[in-house]
Amino acid sequence: MNTNGYHVAVLGATGAVGQQMLQTLEERDFPISKLTLLSSARSAGKKVMFKGEEYEVQAASPDSFKGVQIALFSAGGSVSKEFAPEAVKHGAIVVDNTSAFRMDENVPLVVPEVNEEDLNEHNGIIANPNCSTIQMVVALEPLRQAHGLNKVIVSTYQAVSGSGAAAIEELKTQSEAILKGEEFTPEILPVKGDKKHFQIAFNAIPQIDKFEENGFTFEEMKMMNETKKIMHMSNLEIAATCVRIPVETGHSESVYIELDSDSVSVLDIHELLKDAPGVTLQDDPLTQTYPMPADCVGKNDVFVGRIRKDPDRANGFHLWIVSDNLLKGAAWNSVQIAESLVKLKLV
Amino acid sequence: MNTNGYHVAVLGATGAVGQQMLQTLEERDFPISKLTLLSSARSAGKKVMFKGEEYEVQAASPDSFKGVQIALFSAGGSVSKEFAPEAVKHGAIVVDNTSAFRMDENVPLVVPEVNEEDLNEHNGIIANPNCSTIQMVVALEPLRQAHGLNKVIVSTYQAVSGSGAAAIEELKTQSEAILKGEEFTPEILPVKGDKKHFQIAFNAIPQIDKFEENGFTFEEMKMMNETKKIMHMSNLEIAATCVRIPVETGHSESVYIELDSDSVSVLDIHELLKDAPGVTLQDDPLTQTYPMPADCVGKNDVFVGRIRKDPDRANGFHLWIVSDNLLKGAAWNSVQIAESLVKLKLV
Repeated sequence: MNTNGYHVAVLGATGAVGQQMLQTLEERDFPISKLTLLSSARSAGKKVMFKGEEYEVQAASPDSFKGVQIALFSAGGSVSKEFAPEAVKHGAIVVDNTSAFRMDENVPLVVPEVNEEDLNEHNGIIANPNCSTIQMVVALEPLRQAHGLNKVIVSTYQAVSGSGAAAIEELKTQSEAILKGEEFTPEILPVKGDKKHFQIAFNAIPQIDKFEENGFTFEEMKMMNETKKIMHMSNLEIAATCVRIPVETGHSESVYIELDSDSVSVLDIHELLKDAPGVTLQDDPLTQTYPMPADCVGKNDVFVGRIRKDPDRANGFHLWIVSDNLLKGAAWNSVQIAESLVKLKLV
Repeated sequence: MNTNGYHVAVLGATGAVGQQMLQTLEERDFPISKLTLLSSARSAGKKVMFKGEEYEVQAASPDSFKGVQIALFSAGGSVSKEFAPEAVKHGAIVVDNTSAFRMDENVPLVVPEVNEEDLNEHNGIIANPNCSTIQMVVALEPLRQAHGLNKVIVSTYQAVSGSGAAAIEELKTQSEAILKGEEFTPEILPVKGDKKHFQIAFNAIPQIDKFEENGFTFEEMKMMNETKKIMHMSNLEIAATCVRIPVETGHSESVYIELDSDSVSVLDIHELLKDAPGVTLQDDPLTQTYPMPADCVGKNDVFVGRIRKDPDRANGFHLWIVSDNLLKGAAWNSVQIAESLVKLKLV
């Protein structure tokens, strides 16, 4: 443990998640002795503020990581694939927020509330899961621990900020155009690199990321595969339908689960979740209390409500899970992993 | 059969659904010999166009139904409860678009593609199901017929027009206020008569209609109970989560089903749905072809896509079902029932 703090690098410092990472590091007063801000060549030279000081963002190169102890990556999968091994060579531990290494069996995929102990097995790279996966496993882990979990069916209501700053801008300009009765041309969503683009304002698009051969999208497969890996449940039955809706920030999820036990009540689940780490229970129909994306923005917790027992299966429950996709879904979970690395004396 | 047409009354003629009913009657060239347009006292006196002629809307009274043969009701449950028995006394057949009589065992609840034959059992009143129910059963009935159906888990993405014209206006004015950074006060959604109101623009609200004691909302219970009644499957396992999203018109549904048969393929389901009545199949991941609410507006069909076999259960499938909630979800289904009454010589 370094009492003066650590040499921390943030790669992707000018992006939506990178900015949230810096803000979170500042709010948490993470022990930093030196801060190196990196980006692609395109964004190099931009100025970024941290704790009242201005930093110039540098173009990442293999040499950028000399002396770096903790590197938070959020600049896209190809950038991670290029630079993570370089950072590790220089002795850094990389916390990678892209999908580049998530399913690599040598790379722990970590949500600290669920599988912090997997950090002990790291080989230099630690993967931060997909945003929609993180909030779901935080809510489900206490139930799995207490009563076993055997089936998950999830339908998501995902915000556009998961697709980056350009998608946020597209939602706003399209909304303005539609309200004024003006023409517009979709250019970003559902997937920047895919062939067709569709209206997101006042619409719902049932495609996030590209399609796989089995008809599921990559986003859906990420939720399914990452949940199994994080929870160490290769036999978990799980299927996802991922949908983009016109919300700027805050993912929502309608989740059906089946537990191992037939004798659990809604009150039992309330008891488990009200004290669960990283969870805020918001569930009181009498007072119309339930989570909504507009209420979760800027908060680190995962919010859970609308908990109902399935009318047909005694072990079935329905939940509504909401969280800030840029915080617990990305920046906060990455910083939390860095804090766990310090706590476990792994850095 | 009256070759000159029928004396038709529309109660709620000035509302969002009533207007769509008139437009649909006109488009279908429904045989009308006389048209009586009725409303609450509040909207009486308003002028409404039909086939190029101006009609003055009259305040409904018991005497309004003298000579009426077919009465389409869409003016709220309490209005239906007051006037439907009066209309029946005068010999009219009432097609009621409210929830007032839907679960009455003496009242058929009809989606013509599914249970047109139930019209034969009518006692003067026929109920039009809830919008979110209708589009789901149209898509599921061909699968039930061919392979049996035993479980349904549905999560909805519902448009604000289901809550009427004031909710549409609220979505627009709130969206404008948020884009301009101005203040606003939610007043209508999620439920006009409930205690709290929440932002709908750039948000998702997991409440449609009031809460029941079991934690489900009335909208969710409607989907569950009505589906069982329409499909004549009192033992069907079904649970719904109903969510309002910032879309003006067009409900979407993420639906998980389990069939009786283990040996059905996605191609089998494509074959069944591409020729199914009232269904348009839009399902080709390679060309990013799937239904979206923005594309369904003004169309009578139910659009189905994103059909995937569940990765864990051979009898499990996931579907994405979209339809215009004011048309197939309300006005078109009501007019379609009227057409079936004529076809079956019940009027």
